[in-house]
Amino acid sequence: MRRLLLISNSTLHGSGYLDHCKKQIKEFLSDKVKTVLFVPYALHDRDDYTSTARKAYNEIGYQLEGIHEKPSAVEAVRQAEALFIGGGNTFRLLKTLYDENIVDEIYKRVYNDGMPYIGSSAGTNVATVSINTTNDMPIVFPPSFKAINLVPFNINAHYQDPDPNSKHMGETRAKRIEQYHEYEDSPPVLGIREGCILHVEGDKATLRGVTDARLFVRGKEPVEYKPDADMSFLL
Amino acid sequence: MRRLLLISNSTLHGSGYLDHCKKQIKEFLSDKVKTVLFVPYALHDRDDYTSTARKAYNEIGYQLEGIHEKPSAVEAVRQAEALFIGGGNTFRLLKTLYDENIVDEIYKRVYNDGMPYIGSSAGTNVATVSINTTNDMPIVFPPSFKAINLVPFNINAHYQDPDPNSKHMGETRAKRIEQYHEYEDSPPVLGIREGCILHVEGDKATLRGVTDARLFVRGKEPVEYKPDADMSFLL
Ligand SMILES: [Ca+2]
Ligand SMILES: [Ca+2]
Repeated sequence: MRRLLLISNSTLHGSGYLDHCKKQIKEFLSDKVKTVLFVPYALHDRDDYTSTARKAYNEIGYQLEGIHEKPSAVEAVRQAEALFIGGGNTFRLLKTLYDENIVDEIYKRVYNDGMPYIGSSAGTNVATVSINTTNDMPIVFPPSFKAINLVPFNINAHYQDPDPNSKHMGETRAKRIEQYHEYEDSPPVLGIREGCILHVEGDKATLRGVTDARLFVRGKEPVEYKPDADMSFLL
Repeated sequence: MRRLLLISNSTLHGSGYLDHCKKQIKEFLSDKVKTVLFVPYALHDRDDYTSTARKAYNEIGYQLEGIHEKPSAVEAVRQAEALFIGGGNTFRLLKTLYDENIVDEIYKRVYNDGMPYIGSSAGTNVATVSINTTNDMPIVFPPSFKAINLVPFNINAHYQDPDPNSKHMGETRAKRIEQYHEYEDSPPVLGIREGCILHVEGDKATLRGVTDARLFVRGKEPVEYKPDADMSFLL
């Protein structure tokens, strides 16, 4: 059974790394998992990042290994009890997943073995059908924007409402998503605000966390959803 | 002689389309140009966009044709007196330039014939070495991030300083550019704020407009530049 915990962002303003979702992570992994495999590819300093993630996971009772510390990324994924992919630059992350040949490996472990998958920000983006709705800067060119495809829609993490007082003339987030939906085959885009989490168990999806999500579907008006909303219709 | 007018954005808050740079456009094109070829590819509604651009250029004495109105994009570029590429989504724009086979055609007209090139926002992004520093959402996958390469560095248009009062936890613009500079071969990034223009004549580059630019170079502290600053060292 597919099991996913897709977090908008790791750190809420005024609190520490993963503080706002440690409880959900603990419930999601339970005692069945002893060690989490961490993918730090979205950031440049992988050791530093792994150190940060390790500290947070140790606090809730889990060991954590950085995939870059292992001899083979493919083997590491094949043997992982659980996977956590952290945020940073989504393009750098996706390109590295392709370089390391683990896009399909992750898909298989999640679908065939029910390996629990936790993502934050960029780690949430790459869990979806594609990275077409990332906010990140295209600092490196991946071979495709297709991602791991654990859910068949797009997510826009750190979703931000337009600021009515802003004098900035760049496109709003909503405008950008609207432009994506000018393409005929574009899937729904779930905008998850900071503090929002999407929890998937098999064919059931539920919003968790402390903020609302905004769903954009091509040709329709956007719709707001609150924590505990059933989002299974998106799967 | 290479002649470029690279504008950060078309419309300043509180004023109309191209109002803030019509004077510079008129000086740049002079009476030598009668008709401007407009490339509306960054937006979905090309007719509407061409209508808007036509109105603005008519006001300062130029005819304007939309490249999509012509039988052949390649021929249109080969015969153009001057080119204006408007803003919108940079990925959509660049992909279409590749689809229409005009990336090299534009390069040749600018370098071999001194065809004047005016860009705004996305139109400025594609004039540079690559679109690696666009702010736009990757709504479509182009065959490369390499762009027309009329200047050998990157530009970040609509450059925005970090907001000290923001509670938003997504990366600041400066942070994103810093991440780009984690790559060894990454060129300088010129952040041009809204209202800023880079004017290039041959091997001379000058800042124009009403706002400052911020230059990011890998391994160095960022430096501010004001209108009239000589930026030729970047070429
Ligand atoms: Ca990011
Ligand atoms: Ca844009």
